[in-house]
Amino acid sequence: MGYNALLERMGQVNDLLCAGSVLSWDERTMMPPGGAETRGKQLATLKVFARNHLVADETRRLLDVAEAEVANHAEDSVERTICAQVREAIDYHLRIPSELLQRRAEVGSRGHHVWVKARADSDFAAFAPILEETLALNREMAECIGYEEHPYDALMHRFEPGETLSSLQPLFATLREGLLPLVKAIGEKEPPRVDFLQQPYPVEKQLAFALSMARKVGYDTHRGRLDLTVHPFEISFTRNDVRITTRVNDDWMPKSLFGTLHEAGHGMYEQYCDPAYTRTPLATDLVGLYAVGGVSFGAHESQSRLFENQVGRSREFWELNFGELRDTFPEQLDGIDAETFWRAVNWVRPGFIRVESDESTYDFHIMLRVEIEAALVDGSLSVAELPEAWNAKMKEYLGLDVPDDSLGVLQDVHWSSGQVGTFCNYTIGNVMAGQLFAEAKKDDQVRGGLGAADYHPLREWMTEHIHRHGRRYTREQLLERATGRGLDPTDYVAYLTSKYTEVYEL
Amino acid sequence: MGYNALLERMGQVNDLLCAGSVLSWDERTMMPPGGAETRGKQLATLKVFARNHLVADETRRLLDVAEAEVANHAEDSVERTICAQVREAIDYHLRIPSELLQRRAEVGSRGHHVWVKARADSDFAAFAPILEETLALNREMAECIGYEEHPYDALMHRFEPGETLSSLQPLFATLREGLLPLVKAIGEKEPPRVDFLQQPYPVEKQLAFALSMARKVGYDTHRGRLDLTVHPFEISFTRNDVRITTRVNDDWMPKSLFGTLHEAGHGMYEQYCDPAYTRTPLATDLVGLYAVGGVSFGAHESQSRLFENQVGRSREFWELNFGELRDTFPEQLDGIDAETFWRAVNWVRPGFIRVESDESTYDFHIMLRVEIEAALVDGSLSVAELPEAWNAKMKEYLGLDVPDDSLGVLQDVHWSSGQVGTFCNYTIGNVMAGQLFAEAKKDDQVRGGLGAADYHPLREWMTEHIHRHGRRYTREQLLERATGRGLDPTDYVAYLTSKYTEVYEL
Repeated sequence: MGYNALLERMGQVNDLLCAGSVLSWDERTMMPPGGAETRGKQLATLKVFARNHLVADETRRLLDVAEAEVANHAEDSVERTICAQVREAIDYHLRIPSELLQRRAEVGSRGHHVWVKARADSDFAAFAPILEETLALNREMAECIGYEEHPYDALMHRFEPGETLSSLQPLFATLREGLLPLVKAIGEKEPPRVDFLQQPYPVEKQLAFALSMARKVGYDTHRGRLDLTVHPFEISFTRNDVRITTRVNDDWMPKSLFGTLHEAGHGMYEQYCDPAYTRTPLATDLVGLYAVGGVSFGAHESQSRLFENQVGRSREFWELNFGELRDTFPEQLDGIDAETFWRAVNWVRPGFIRVESDESTYDFHIMLRVEIEAALVDGSLSVAELPEAWNAKMKEYLGLDVPDDSLGVLQDVHWSSGQVGTFCNYTIGNVMAGQLFAEAKKDDQVRGGLGAADYHPLREWMTEHIHRHGRRYTREQLLERATGRGLDPTDYVAYLTSKYTEVYEL
Repeated sequence: MGYNALLERMGQVNDLLCAGSVLSWDERTMMPPGGAETRGKQLATLKVFARNHLVADETRRLLDVAEAEVANHAEDSVERTICAQVREAIDYHLRIPSELLQRRAEVGSRGHHVWVKARADSDFAAFAPILEETLALNREMAECIGYEEHPYDALMHRFEPGETLSSLQPLFATLREGLLPLVKAIGEKEPPRVDFLQQPYPVEKQLAFALSMARKVGYDTHRGRLDLTVHPFEISFTRNDVRITTRVNDDWMPKSLFGTLHEAGHGMYEQYCDPAYTRTPLATDLVGLYAVGGVSFGAHESQSRLFENQVGRSREFWELNFGELRDTFPEQLDGIDAETFWRAVNWVRPGFIRVESDESTYDFHIMLRVEIEAALVDGSLSVAELPEAWNAKMKEYLGLDVPDDSLGVLQDVHWSSGQVGTFCNYTIGNVMAGQLFAEAKKDDQVRGGLGAADYHPLREWMTEHIHRHGRRYTREQLLERATGRGLDPTDYVAYLTSKYTEVYEL
């Protein structure tokens, strides 16, 4: 009785958080400009109600009863895992005053709109005040949450539980060591031919082809849809309704195509969560107060990067699918073959924009952000100094001079919606994708499918080892179960080295 | 302190209800089919939380304090009106168990999807079980709410406070007396030429023209948007985001055009509510648990019908705006002039579908539904007998033989989402529109504007007398203040008689 009643209360928390996600999706795809202010209040109220329902006396009473009820279940049973997660989340939230949470949601909603305009105008000064507010709120959060070494660790906990600034250092060092020589070697070679990607490709056809590829790798449009937005994202309102978004350049076709494969990878993580976990804590981030089935942002990113890059930018993928692409754009791709296309979409060009960067330089964008965020949080860097610090690091890591802030410090959506501490997840996702894909390819059916443009065996392997488990296991437990070891960059560095050796004939 | 704290709590109730409205809008315009089941749960949870927050001990404590605080304000002051409305709503809801409310929301969400399919298949049997559930729930509701004469009165209260089955009888009698001879006289005349409306009009151009006209009469797209749906509706998430929907026939152009003007009329009622009322009970239906600024469904319908019919189907409107329409569709309207078009869109043809019916027969569709609903509610008519009863009344009132249920009993969306007792509002809206438009035209600026295709003075008159007041005054108080008398069908009957005498040269 206690356990079932606890589940129903957690179902209501999930409902409120899913409702917030619908409002967020709408805000970023459909909402008319006038709606921004009251939408922020509505989002704040939904989070406050979800949080209050979670920590309410009645929930705690039911949790006590439930814990006693399931005490004789195995320690890693679903029931005890759920009780432990609810207990941990309640402890976490009782450390954070609800009014702080509400201010944070309101600033996040306002911030997004300020940022959209500031980025369009490349006007950092217009964004600076709300970034100050965001950082102050995040510092307050870190103090409430608590940490051992650095306030940034407290902020990362929401996105990548267990990760700290110091635990990232050896991972980053291995990547630097493996990737810097690779980027250098590539820089000495001639770039591939890419001119045919830089011509007009009709928007509607781009969207249709991108969605067709997303479906092909396993994204289910009966339980999803694709829309346009400024900064693409994936969002779910239970596994039954998981939406993806993209943006389209009418003269740089890869953006919509690979962006959509990326979000489809995220989407499948949610769509193939065990249906029995729907509305339970195993499909709800009770700490981050977000209705999501993925166990960490890094684990989530492993699925998006895997389908975008390991699958979507592979030679084999285009040997099998280029025909459909050329049939869609016969004029634009006249005289181009699969190999030429494959080389073009693996073009390495150190650039300003993280989301447009190639696989060999992507992780340097992440290291830059992690270092800058940590310094902003501990106050060793001020908001006024931020653009200069950003630009200096871009010069140091990628040898580039940033021409204006829209190509620099204003490019990412994260800060605008109040998120600080999430960037490491991208590199963790890259590394985890390398590790999982190498393991999956040991399976005959997966390998056979990849060689026949049938991506169901791969999707099913990921569902079996990752998707279906929702939040039942930690990221490290998932990796141990799937590959026999925790996070390990060996496969990822080997994958990049092997691919670029082939693309650039190193 | 008590009053302001009460307002903030009511603001949160409004937030939750607005969130529910965003989810409803999404469900009916954007949601992929897989999302239906969990969406129903999410909507139910939002209503339950709104209701529980409204009736919570803390709200009642604050209400006691607030009432004492504002006791020396004028009886009709905003403060005392708000306190009285909160008190009334709490009393109402405490009579209805929250689990009944939750079941009702869930059935409503499921019902909509069942109905969409049943209507497409003209399969009443597929819809009957959920209609049984809906009626049973509404009967339970009526018993909880309480009534003096008929359970239907209790159900109407949510939509049209103060109206009863018996109070409708004299109104209906006057309309029958005034309109039956008119319909008969029209039936003896030749119909106008309408062939040019029954050809392909491109969908995108129809939408663009309809939206252009909606903007012209005053609908603000900075705080709104137009989308496609199956059964058009208007919905608001505060006055800052008020959305309208329409459907388009590619060979019957008036549907999208007049449907959009209709929803724009609803939309303006919300958009021009006093901004000071945002998130307060004066922009929240605390009894119906719906975030709406209009004071009754009938008052709301007065605005939609006024802009659709009194303005949109007037001779003067097309004398001034036909040029823009012909420029949009030069081939389709080749050789057609404003007068021919105006006669065509006032074509009287007794038909099966309420939302497509002309002004002279519309109210007969309403009388039929009110009689049938009341009989379904008191059990004198069973669901099994419903199609036959419907078809018999269509024969009696409009002389028509209904060929299948999609053109009969399955046509309306209302029952599918759990609404029973709302149909009288359409006729009340028609009557109120006639009364308000006759009064507004006594104003020189309004009349001058109408003669120069400038609809701002009319919209401003409506804002001054209706929109801005939100839910501060009752429908009858609004009418008294605007026209010096309560609801009176004289102007409406005179308007129809005069228009059709001209159109049909009676």
